[in-house]
Amino acid sequence: MSEPIRVIQYGLGAIGRAAARLALSRPGIEVVGAIDRDPTLAGRDLGEVLSLDRKLGVAVTDKPVILFAQTRADVVIHCTTSSFVEAYEQLTEIVRAGLHCVTSCEEALFPYYRHKLLAGKLDDLCIQKSAAVVGTGVNPGLVMDTLALLLTMACQSIEAVRVLRVVDAGTRREALQRKVGAALSEEEFKARSEQRKVGHVGLAESLAFLADGLGWAVDELKESLDPVIASKAIKTEFLSVAEGGVAGVRQFARGLRGGKEVLTLELQMYVGAPNPRDVIEIVGEPPLRLVIEGGVPGDVATPAILVNTLSRLVECRPGLHTMRTLGLPRMAL
Amino acid sequence: MSEPIRVIQYGLGAIGRAAARLALSRPGIEVVGAIDRDPTLAGRDLGEVLSLDRKLGVAVTDKPVILFAQTRADVVIHCTTSSFVEAYEQLTEIVRAGLHCVTSCEEALFPYYRHKLLAGKLDDLCIQKSAAVVGTGVNPGLVMDTLALLLTMACQSIEAVRVLRVVDAGTRREALQRKVGAALSEEEFKARSEQRKVGHVGLAESLAFLADGLGWAVDELKESLDPVIASKAIKTEFLSVAEGGVAGVRQFARGLRGGKEVLTLELQMYVGAPNPRDVIEIVGEPPLRLVIEGGVPGDVATPAILVNTLSRLVECRPGLHTMRTLGLPRMAL
Repeated sequence: MSEPIRVIQYGLGAIGRAAARLALSRPGIEVVGAIDRDPTLAGRDLGEVLSLDRKLGVAVTDKPVILFAQTRADVVIHCTTSSFVEAYEQLTEIVRAGLHCVTSCEEALFPYYRHKLLAGKLDDLCIQKSAAVVGTGVNPGLVMDTLALLLTMACQSIEAVRVLRVVDAGTRREALQRKVGAALSEEEFKARSEQRKVGHVGLAESLAFLADGLGWAVDELKESLDPVIASKAIKTEFLSVAEGGVAGVRQFARGLRGGKEVLTLELQMYVGAPNPRDVIEIVGEPPLRLVIEGGVPGDVATPAILVNTLSRLVECRPGLHTMRTLGLPRMAL
Repeated sequence: MSEPIRVIQYGLGAIGRAAARLALSRPGIEVVGAIDRDPTLAGRDLGEVLSLDRKLGVAVTDKPVILFAQTRADVVIHCTTSSFVEAYEQLTEIVRAGLHCVTSCEEALFPYYRHKLLAGKLDDLCIQKSAAVVGTGVNPGLVMDTLALLLTMACQSIEAVRVLRVVDAGTRREALQRKVGAALSEEEFKARSEQRKVGHVGLAESLAFLADGLGWAVDELKESLDPVIASKAIKTEFLSVAEGGVAGVRQFARGLRGGKEVLTLELQMYVGAPNPRDVIEIVGEPPLRLVIEGGVPGDVATPAILVNTLSRLVECRPGLHTMRTLGLPRMAL
């Protein structure tokens, strides 16, 4: 790569800040702008916001359209929301400015599942503006979908694909511990879960991506989300779970064809979860079982995946992509 | 897929026959021709050669150019040799006929490593004839290269990638047991190894593919091949290894940058190898360790990978591809 890729970081939460820090460390990447809606960050130097020991000469702004108009950039790293609908206006502004975009928005992994119409419109706009957009991350984005799909390549026939991801939320950042409902009572968990304010977003998208990639028409996609109850008190760096309190979540997405469960994605994310791991199992010919011991750690790997995707976006054809239609996802400097 | 993909099977050895059988079982694929250089097969019905209980109305021929001229086809599954130079004329005939091709030729996984000039010429011809060609398989093709490269996506930084594949040759077909040198004496093994007639082909190609995918300029690529000596007598379905005789091979490909070993591919293929497995280890941030228990079984998975690649080839742009430049490799009907 001769010319550096000029990047704007959109969203300076934990993942956005980590992505910006990683982008700054890569020789082929130049960070030329930063956006956050938090008015207290506006005008501050990005180096300071990232707790670096130097100024970067890049002021954080809450006015993305003005920044896009005034800055020569190539790609936006977008980390603001899990919801494709919430992300949609931001993404269209990015694409209208002719910029590529990699987003950590979980529903954008396979937006055709929940938001077919909007996804189609965004794809049209991408083509019109010669921009490429893709949603990715560790989960969704790699372990429960792209990696599983690649493994199917070795099979003559497949009856079912099962993926299990077990995450010890106690080793993760506070926001994630709160997101899985750790330290809530069962009643609080239930109330929040009804408002969809607890748990992981993206399991259904991973499943829909897998089904689409395999060319399987799934008749029914079922999701469930339940609390994991602590059998003993647990204390993390950030919170305390009482015995009988909620330690986190256990979620399923299940895909059925002709009444038979052919795709099963199970996510366990709770404080104190033993033996964290990612397991992909293919029931087929040959049967296959892949294990990542310890599991791919989200806090480190999600920023990596966002930044590693930048050079894929610059190379690929315009459009709203999925992890299937970019060149092989990989780390490349 | 509305129109079936019309396939010609080129090469009717063990892998070629298995690929043809699998292709015949797939609804979206039609087998319209078969080629083998063995004159005793010429004119025989493919169904009979494949030991099916029905005739297919497809006669095996040893005249590929005539077949290509007389048959409407889309893709060739090519399984004749490990050597890209040996495959080259056959591949050019295929491409000249405007046909796509997936080949099990090991050196074609990354032909730019050993045969840059020929690879470039074939790529030019592909573009001129609107044909796509790719070399793939289990190894090389999936476990020691494509899968490892995908896993790097999760990393912020990488110091080294190490892949280990252990295959119990005793569970594989006779040709493979012979290929790894099982039942030879050490002297015979040494003589054959000097003639490059023993061992696995493709380890260096996997390494060169990985290095290229990571954007790493490797200063030196070292290969080694040694016999594994049987510590006790072993008998397989096809042969007997005496105590002190050769049970198989242990091969390495090592990639060095600035004197440091950054890529290590180790293949153990011998009769009686305990705990067969594929292990991908990334020394980096985060460190990652992926294990496929039992290993991906080559005899079943190689034909699967060839056949699963057909629909990728039909979709992709013309050219000499690698597993990096097709859409995400996967099983899709």
